[in-house]
Amino acid sequence: MNASWLERPVAPLNEAAIEAAAARQEQLTKPPGSLGEMEHVAIRLAGMQGQLKPCVDRIWISIFAGDHGVAAAGVSAFPQAVTGQMILNFAAGGAAISVLARELGATLEVVNLGTVNDPGECAGVRRAFIAAQTADFCAAPAMTETQLAEALAAGEHSVQLARDAGAQLFIGGEMGIGNTAVATALACAFLDEPPARLVGAGTGLDAAGIARKSEVIERALRRHAGLTDPLAILRCLGGFELAALAGAYIAAAQAGLPVLVDGFIASAAALAAVRIQPGARDWLLFAHRSHERGHARVLEALHARPLLDLDLRLGEGSGAAAAVPLLRLACALHGGMATFAEAGVADA
Amino acid sequence: MNASWLERPVAPLNEAAIEAAAARQEQLTKPPGSLGEMEHVAIRLAGMQGQLKPCVDRIWISIFAGDHGVAAAGVSAFPQAVTGQMILNFAAGGAAISVLARELGATLEVVNLGTVNDPGECAGVRRAFIAAQTADFCAAPAMTETQLAEALAAGEHSVQLARDAGAQLFIGGEMGIGNTAVATALACAFLDEPPARLVGAGTGLDAAGIARKSEVIERALRRHAGLTDPLAILRCLGGFELAALAGAYIAAAQAGLPVLVDGFIASAAALAAVRIQPGARDWLLFAHRSHERGHARVLEALHARPLLDLDLRLGEGSGAAAAVPLLRLACALHGGMATFAEAGVADA
Repeated sequence: MNASWLERPVAPLNEAAIEAAAARQEQLTKPPGSLGEMEHVAIRLAGMQGQLKPCVDRIWISIFAGDHGVAAAGVSAFPQAVTGQMILNFAAGGAAISVLARELGATLEVVNLGTVNDPGECAGVRRAFIAAQTADFCAAPAMTETQLAEALAAGEHSVQLARDAGAQLFIGGEMGIGNTAVATALACAFLDEPPARLVGAGTGLDAAGIARKSEVIERALRRHAGLTDPLAILRCLGGFELAALAGAYIAAAQAGLPVLVDGFIASAAALAAVRIQPGARDWLLFAHRSHERGHARVLEALHARPLLDLDLRLGEGSGAAAAVPLLRLACALHGGMATFAEAGVADA
Repeated sequence: MNASWLERPVAPLNEAAIEAAAARQEQLTKPPGSLGEMEHVAIRLAGMQGQLKPCVDRIWISIFAGDHGVAAAGVSAFPQAVTGQMILNFAAGGAAISVLARELGATLEVVNLGTVNDPGECAGVRRAFIAAQTADFCAAPAMTETQLAEALAAGEHSVQLARDAGAQLFIGGEMGIGNTAVATALACAFLDEPPARLVGAGTGLDAAGIARKSEVIERALRRHAGLTDPLAILRCLGGFELAALAGAYIAAAQAGLPVLVDGFIASAAALAAVRIQPGARDWLLFAHRSHERGHARVLEALHARPLLDLDLRLGEGSGAAAAVPLLRLACALHGGMATFAEAGVADA
């Protein structure tokens, strides 16, 4: 395996399209700026897609699933078998993201990167199996070099599939019992924060569970102290699905495909992606501020202002999917409203 | 004219449906509570619609337009002629709310309650003309008793049209140059706040314009000091479109039709409606926290937590329309996700 593709430059934004879109916003029949973030997002999408009137009709959603050695330390409210069970639920159409993808007319891809309770070959699931789970990061690096490269490449491959399908927006989701602990460890390492400042309840831990999770993350950070290379941090403290998300974000930025980032775990992967390839930040839109405690700090580090703040904390790409209609309506307003001149309305 | 219909009781929520919907949310394949506000809104809609699986496919949007005598005092960044011009823009499909209604498949009704620059009879506009404009509320009550009753009844009539069309959700919007000043005056009177605490930029006033607007509202509040009857406050300090919105909200609550409240001006009308008929609050969902300065205080008084916070400040019902997909997705998730038992997924 070779991860040299990570160093390819990201696509440039189209500055002329940004200027033209901003000028158009000033001419639409509304007080300038009165559509707030809906204006900004339309202008940013114009710059990403290189056209005056952007469009996000065709959405691609990849859900990356993987298990974590650290789950044995009791860092989740759910048993580890749920990762594999939920893969089947995604494919069968019963999970939140399955419902949302249907409602949005989005393509949903489910990628099994490695699960202890392995559902095996099954319809609607792409198998990119790396190992049953990562190593317990308190005792060893979570991934080998090869495993990290495979996980990053799985994300790149999903972006390739999305591009082949003509996607105009990429959403990555994740499933993996224990992965808020993993995302918190990554965030602590990248941001030099103690676990006590970022650790949260995940899927529903009580106070004792949160304290245990914090202590586990502290051990992991001690075990892998002193790392500065972002790929090494991702390898030692990450997970298959987080690395796949990071790989997908970088590949999307290289390909010029806009990304809508989901919640805490996806944002931790986005932080990894931006540390590996800083230019990737230009291609990321942020969907929501989740209920998970560490998310605000990660968003701050990414200079991100998400669209939604609804106390979501499910993952699976569900918060990003919930924000898609706002992007679509922003594009429709930008493209479809009359100008002052067209409508014969007096300007301010 | 007679406004005794305002005293009719509001419809009760269906408590059994609320309990059943809350129980269903606990069984869906996600950590309990992990869909945050999306869960709450689905449960509330279940209680309003009296069914386990609510639905907001059929949306009715009424835009109430009216002019204000106080506009002559220079409280807006736009000339008064824009109210009439925008009525034509709504009907022609070029305004923000026109685009949003199309995208949502919603029915859009435009109601001309009184405009100085009167477009007259025109296709796509319901004429419920009360007068060219209200009186300048610094010098006299904004409306006569008869005018207030007509404006309230115009709102009630729109709700009747919405019900006849089988609407599952009612959105009221407004257009009227100067109406952030009017809404601010109402909010100050209902909440006993000085204008300096609530006044904002409206469609784009500079600091001098805001100071002038604040001074105008102070004069109006002095002119009509000591009122306690909410109908008297609405009559003296309100406007045709604000009274129509208040009438619509009360009528919708009486009819058991859920309402999605738009921004600052719609929220000021909602405050009036709730002061007139406190039970109406049960039927109001709140779409967004607008950029307009006084909105946060009005929302607080209504114990409202809106769905969106995107710095919108356009009015026209546009913020409510932007939030509709969240309600629809909340219903789709609530109705369409698999339960733990159905999916064979282990519970926490």
